[in-house]
Amino acid sequence: MDEKVKKQLEFILELDKLKKVERKNRILDESRNENTAEHSWHSIMMAIIFAEYGNENVDLFKVIQMIAVHDIVEIYAGDTFFFDEKANQDKYQRESEAIKKLTTILPNENGDNIKSIWFEFEHQETMDSIFANAIDQIMPVILNANSNGLSWTENNITAKQVEAKLSIVKKASPKLWELLKNQINISIDKNILS
Amino acid sequence: MDEKVKKQLEFILELDKLKKVERKNRILDESRNENTAEHSWHSIMMAIIFAEYGNENVDLFKVIQMIAVHDIVEIYAGDTFFFDEKANQDKYQRESEAIKKLTTILPNENGDNIKSIWFEFEHQETMDSIFANAIDQIMPVILNANSNGLSWTENNITAKQVEAKLSIVKKASPKLWELLKNQINISIDKNILS
Repeated sequence: MDEKVKKQLEFILELDKLKKVERKNRILDESRNENTAEHSWHSIMMAIIFAEYGNENVDLFKVIQMIAVHDIVEIYAGDTFFFDEKANQDKYQRESEAIKKLTTILPNENGDNIKSIWFEFEHQETMDSIFANAIDQIMPVILNANSNGLSWTENNITAKQVEAKLSIVKKASPKLWELLKNQINISIDKNILS
Repeated sequence: MDEKVKKQLEFILELDKLKKVERKNRILDESRNENTAEHSWHSIMMAIIFAEYGNENVDLFKVIQMIAVHDIVEIYAGDTFFFDEKANQDKYQRESEAIKKLTTILPNENGDNIKSIWFEFEHQETMDSIFANAIDQIMPVILNANSNGLSWTENNITAKQVEAKLSIVKKASPKLWELLKNQINISIDKNILS
């Protein structure tokens, strides 16, 4: 096996650890916490289904790659709860260190590609990255709104917080913004958002 | 919320069940069985890293979508162990019924798109689908070869079986075929393949 394939294989094996990173939210039946690997897949599927609602024509290929890649930093940096303001202060720094560390495992060309995908997602400057971020953020809202919303009730999350923190959805798509408002209203009615 | 979005949302919620479909193989540290949702994500990442090795230029966008979509049938049809010849006899029939049932939840346009992605993967007639199948099949080999290979040892899988069942890898890419042979040899040395 040549050196290049060896490095690529080592990276792929390292990625397995994302299956052990627990998120605050549960899977839909609330039998356990969701892990980040399965969340990434579910968000990719949502992007495929909702691609038509992008505010401008979105490049679904780029969107999917951003969603697949952006959370791999959690292998080293852990999952940062979206509504934990304190933990979010140094999130970007922790995660950009993690993406550098992770991609040193790879041959340069692959590493540069993965880093550029990751930074595009994080910087939220392109319409594709705005759409990818919106999808990634709506996913747990939908899981909460359609269950007992344990990750919200346990952390006393309010409707105002959800709406404010997810403002990027408005930028990404009026249709998804409408969906988000609908899911927030359902959650208020169910008393899982105060 | 309009009818179309309602259907799309219902489909996305139904997909959550893939996180509860257990595969025979374990995650890399062998602490638990892998589920199909996280397997799909991991295979997508592998496709991104190994795309350069396609026998012909592969359309990575199509490959990724096929990998993301093809296993959703397991929500109704369950996971079929790759080396279980009996269970594989009616696999295509069970799964094609499942893809029809699943996609009736969706608006027609989305449903047709998901079905066409699924059938392209299953029919293995395009180079993109051959590559996607190869990636999907190599993934558990790599997890087994780099651990104690419990899903192999528990089911008395032989090196001959792995090589024969994964013949599509040869068609997809000489480089991946070389990697597969290497992983099989490592596994024979470790006594996890007889």
